Amino acid sequence: MKVVLIASGGMDSATLAYDYAARGADIHMLTFDYGQRHARECGAAAALSKRIGARWSLMPISWLGGMLAGSSLTDASVPVPHGHYAADNMRSTVVPNRNMVMLSLAAAVAVSEDADVIGTAVHAGDHFIYPDCRPQFIDAVDLAIRVGNAGFGSPALRVEAPFLLWTKAAIAARGAVLGVPFADTWSCYEGGDVHCGKCGTCVERREAFDLAGISDPTEYA
Amino acid sequence: MKVVLIASGGMDSATLAYDYAARGADIHMLTFDYGQRHARECGAAAALSKRIGARWSLMPISWLGGMLAGSSLTDASVPVPHGHYAADNMRSTVVPNRNMVMLSLAAAVAVSEDADVIGTAVHAGDHFIYPDCRPQFIDAVDLAIRVGNAGFGSPALRVEAPFLLWTKAAIAARGAVLGVPFADTWSCYEGGDVHCGKCGTCVERREAFDLAGISDPTEYA
Repeated sequence: MKVVLIASGGMDSATLAYDYAARGADIHMLTFDYGQRHARECGAAAALSKRIGARWSLMPISWLGGMLAGSSLTDASVPVPHGHYAADNMRSTVVPNRNMVMLSLAAAVAVSEDADVIGTAVHAGDHFIYPDCRPQFIDAVDLAIRVGNAGFGSPALRVEAPFLLWTKAAIAARGAVLGVPFADTWSCYEGGDVHCGKCGTCVERREAFDLAGISDPTEYA
Repeated sequence: MKVVLIASGGMDSATLAYDYAARGADIHMLTFDYGQRHARECGAAAALSKRIGARWSLMPISWLGGMLAGSSLTDASVPVPHGHYAADNMRSTVVPNRNMVMLSLAAAVAVSEDADVIGTAVHAGDHFIYPDCRPQFIDAVDLAIRVGNAGFGSPALRVEAPFLLWTKAAIAARGAVLGVPFADTWSCYEGGDVHCGKCGTCVERREAFDLAGISDPTEYA
């Protein structure tokens, strides 16, 4: 099985990479630099790819961040909100159409390389804030990719989002079984040297380890 | 009406730009540098935007062309085929998932700018070779964009492809009515100083003017 995997360097995509690696897949990890403050995650993804013997490519779309005003992830003038992920103030962490942009570029690579799977680690905890992490969106984009590339690439090409209905705690539990080096993954939306521990994704990360009953190896500020 | 328009600098998107301009739309033209040999079309699009008072942005994804082997449009080692557009040898002019990549990035800009329309000038003549120019694909990608951005941007956001069922000759006729400066548009897939007159898109361009009964202002080699 040939997989083109969207890999941010966070614990979700790291777990999915280890999952495909455990199944013997030929993996090409794609990490997107979309002008996010937390570009540090790009280095984490590259390091993870070496551990599992996957190919790794950086997809440079940071120029896009400069065109999209108003997201706290790409616009330095908008503060990153603190607190729980499932809250209205997290709206500012939305980057318009981010997953479709990443999936479309991943599909271009996948068709070119005759890959069978485009993998994404979106999960149920993302649904509340991000419309492009919901099952309806994954279904729609999977259809668009199949129809738009009919007759080219692998006839089996499909989008796989195995964690789509999982909680992040379930992913943490699965990652622990697979031996994912969580300490080397990066989640924080702030651009600091260690995880801030207070932004939405840090709060979610801590909670996931806690709920899964796994000791959290992350250093928080 | 705010429109984000995918504009290559060719006669189809030029006609669509003039069509929206005639209706008083606020237009943001996006031209994609995807590493194509015929980058000259980018300059044609920029010049057209000035004529109609539209904003214009270059979307730099030429790095993607380097990742996608085998397309004659982006890979210098693959010759551009000559002959009629609706022929099997035109398969090599397919750039995997090109329209979805462009539409996804255009949607990110459209959501960020509260635009109502993402415009694309794909037409019936493209259907035979390019699966991502067919009505089923436009429907699927429109759905994915709406679902994936629910609650963000303009509630009216939609993909418009007004020429989807038109022949290129019909577009030429419409463009003539609108006063499109066809001599300043660029179609040729080869990277020369003037249109080669022999590649698929040159053959299609000549045929369109001929069928529409419009004198062709293009200089061919």
